[in-house]
Amino acid sequence: MEQHVIFTNKVDEALHEALHSLNPAKVFVLADEHTAALVLPQLHLNAAPITIAAGDSHKDLSALEDVWNALQREGATRASVLVNVGGGMVTDLGGMAAATFKRGIRFINVPTTLLAAVDAAVGGKTGINHGGLKNELGVFAPASHVIISTAFFGTLPHDELLSGYAEMLKHAMLTDDDSLEQLMRLDPTGEPVPLELLRRSVEVKQRIVEQDPHEQGPRKALNLGHTVGHAFESLALRRRQPVPHGYAVAWGLVVESLLSHLRLGFPSAIVYRLADFVMERYGTFVITCDDYPWLVETMRHDKKSHHGEINCTLLAACGHPRVDRAVTPDDITTALDLYRDLFHI
Amino acid sequence: MEQHVIFTNKVDEALHEALHSLNPAKVFVLADEHTAALVLPQLHLNAAPITIAAGDSHKDLSALEDVWNALQREGATRASVLVNVGGGMVTDLGGMAAATFKRGIRFINVPTTLLAAVDAAVGGKTGINHGGLKNELGVFAPASHVIISTAFFGTLPHDELLSGYAEMLKHAMLTDDDSLEQLMRLDPTGEPVPLELLRRSVEVKQRIVEQDPHEQGPRKALNLGHTVGHAFESLALRRRQPVPHGYAVAWGLVVESLLSHLRLGFPSAIVYRLADFVMERYGTFVITCDDYPWLVETMRHDKKSHHGEINCTLLAACGHPRVDRAVTPDDITTALDLYRDLFHI
Repeated sequence: MEQHVIFTNKVDEALHEALHSLNPAKVFVLADEHTAALVLPQLHLNAAPITIAAGDSHKDLSALEDVWNALQREGATRASVLVNVGGGMVTDLGGMAAATFKRGIRFINVPTTLLAAVDAAVGGKTGINHGGLKNELGVFAPASHVIISTAFFGTLPHDELLSGYAEMLKHAMLTDDDSLEQLMRLDPTGEPVPLELLRRSVEVKQRIVEQDPHEQGPRKALNLGHTVGHAFESLALRRRQPVPHGYAVAWGLVVESLLSHLRLGFPSAIVYRLADFVMERYGTFVITCDDYPWLVETMRHDKKSHHGEINCTLLAACGHPRVDRAVTPDDITTALDLYRDLFHI
Repeated sequence: MEQHVIFTNKVDEALHEALHSLNPAKVFVLADEHTAALVLPQLHLNAAPITIAAGDSHKDLSALEDVWNALQREGATRASVLVNVGGGMVTDLGGMAAATFKRGIRFINVPTTLLAAVDAAVGGKTGINHGGLKNELGVFAPASHVIISTAFFGTLPHDELLSGYAEMLKHAMLTDDDSLEQLMRLDPTGEPVPLELLRRSVEVKQRIVEQDPHEQGPRKALNLGHTVGHAFESLALRRRQPVPHGYAVAWGLVVESLLSHLRLGFPSAIVYRLADFVMERYGTFVITCDDYPWLVETMRHDKKSHHGEINCTLLAACGHPRVDRAVTPDDITTALDLYRDLFHI
């Protein structure tokens, strides 16, 4: 699973070099309608454009079929290359289109959002939503090159920056105390995230993915914050007050660090510090004890759980994940009580 | 790319052992409507059935979507296993469905036709037709187990047996003179193909695929007979008198052995012997010199060709393939003239 990840703010230069090294017969570039207008002109690509509607609701089979048909219509061969320019929706869908066209053509990811840069664009997961389930269809297929920059972040909404930052917090928690502390000293909506910090964050994910590309063990460390996070996200959706995925992850990191404290002695001082930071930047996700049974049931049906047992990734300390840890409904109740205390709910 | 290929006529026993070793949370079985009625009762499977319409014209996105939806509706998880029972259409489509569901669930192939047993079921190519092109969408994904038997061949039409036998001839030509001679002494429509011969044939493909799972070099040896074969198949389709794929391959093997003789000194005695055998079993595909330009153009657009050059796999001798050999329109004209002489056209 060879993947070249390039960190640079000279995106067009890096992209031309990457294409040169791949020596494609023909180049295609996929973007959503917004990115096509805003970003493509900056890249000076000699490529056949393929444009799809924006938004995660369009990360579906219909859009995938449009991309396949466009590749076919424009004469793509196995020697072609697809460049995916955009957020996670575009890199996930474009990656799947490339990986399944003629049993796989090469592709390059150019993430334009912080979330895509630190999460979706690297690591080889591609996919689309189907039948109401996220990433239900897809394959593991790495981009040959990922070009990571902060060049397109200037115009991102605060929501989007904070969503990406939650994944950076997670990567820092999988590294060491200092990395986490460093991130908590910054305001991601106030000042641009330095490219160097982005590089360190992405390298955490790269290291873990290289050990376990198909998520059979160590890669589950990257699920930190996501078991509780997904349950919060689903509850918000059920209340018809959806929250951004990254916000749910940030709150999930707090609850799972509490679970880690209860089960593995994760230091309480870091839990408090993290809770303060998350509350200040992401606000408070309000729950009452009436929500507990529904949240527990939702976690039980999470794809990370087996045979009705709830499985989380927990931390003995920053940098010391323990994957596939079974937690009981009582553990969760206690952690949610503590979360409500910390957030003054 | 670990793949267990099991040769046995006790299919139900082997299947139960394979499933036992995979320890699936739930088992699904995919078959076309005919196979579902004829074969599934013999397998005594405790599995959720998924049935699709029969025939290569249904190897399409619509049937693939039906399979995805059935897996989703019946609660398939990453721990599920899909058993594909049928010809190449079912193993190709079912393999793609499994390989793309939740980024890949495990699958078992139980080929019920000679062609699927010696070709489609082994080697990790999955796919569907799209936009009028064969296998336009798909991925490389090996079945965890392939159970190969002659148990279902008794009721196969002669066409189908001869189609599969052409691939066996090809595998023998990639092995040695004796293997080819042995096959040419049998009548595949008169007596059952011995399981031992099937095993030897499949093992030729396995050896080649293991060297090069993603078809970047040595695997192209398996294209022997197919450059000319595909062109004959397309011409037949254009004349609205379609021929079975395997028949086209048999005629293609004759023409490409002539090209091999012209370019690499492949022994003429074997060419004559092969031409006699193919003419007797498969009959004659009639062409005139008026067809030559169209055939050459079609070969030029074959996916094995690059930059307008026609590429074939040729043989210096049986067992000594040379892949990616450029042949000129003059070479092809000469070989087609010789083919017409040999077949008294």
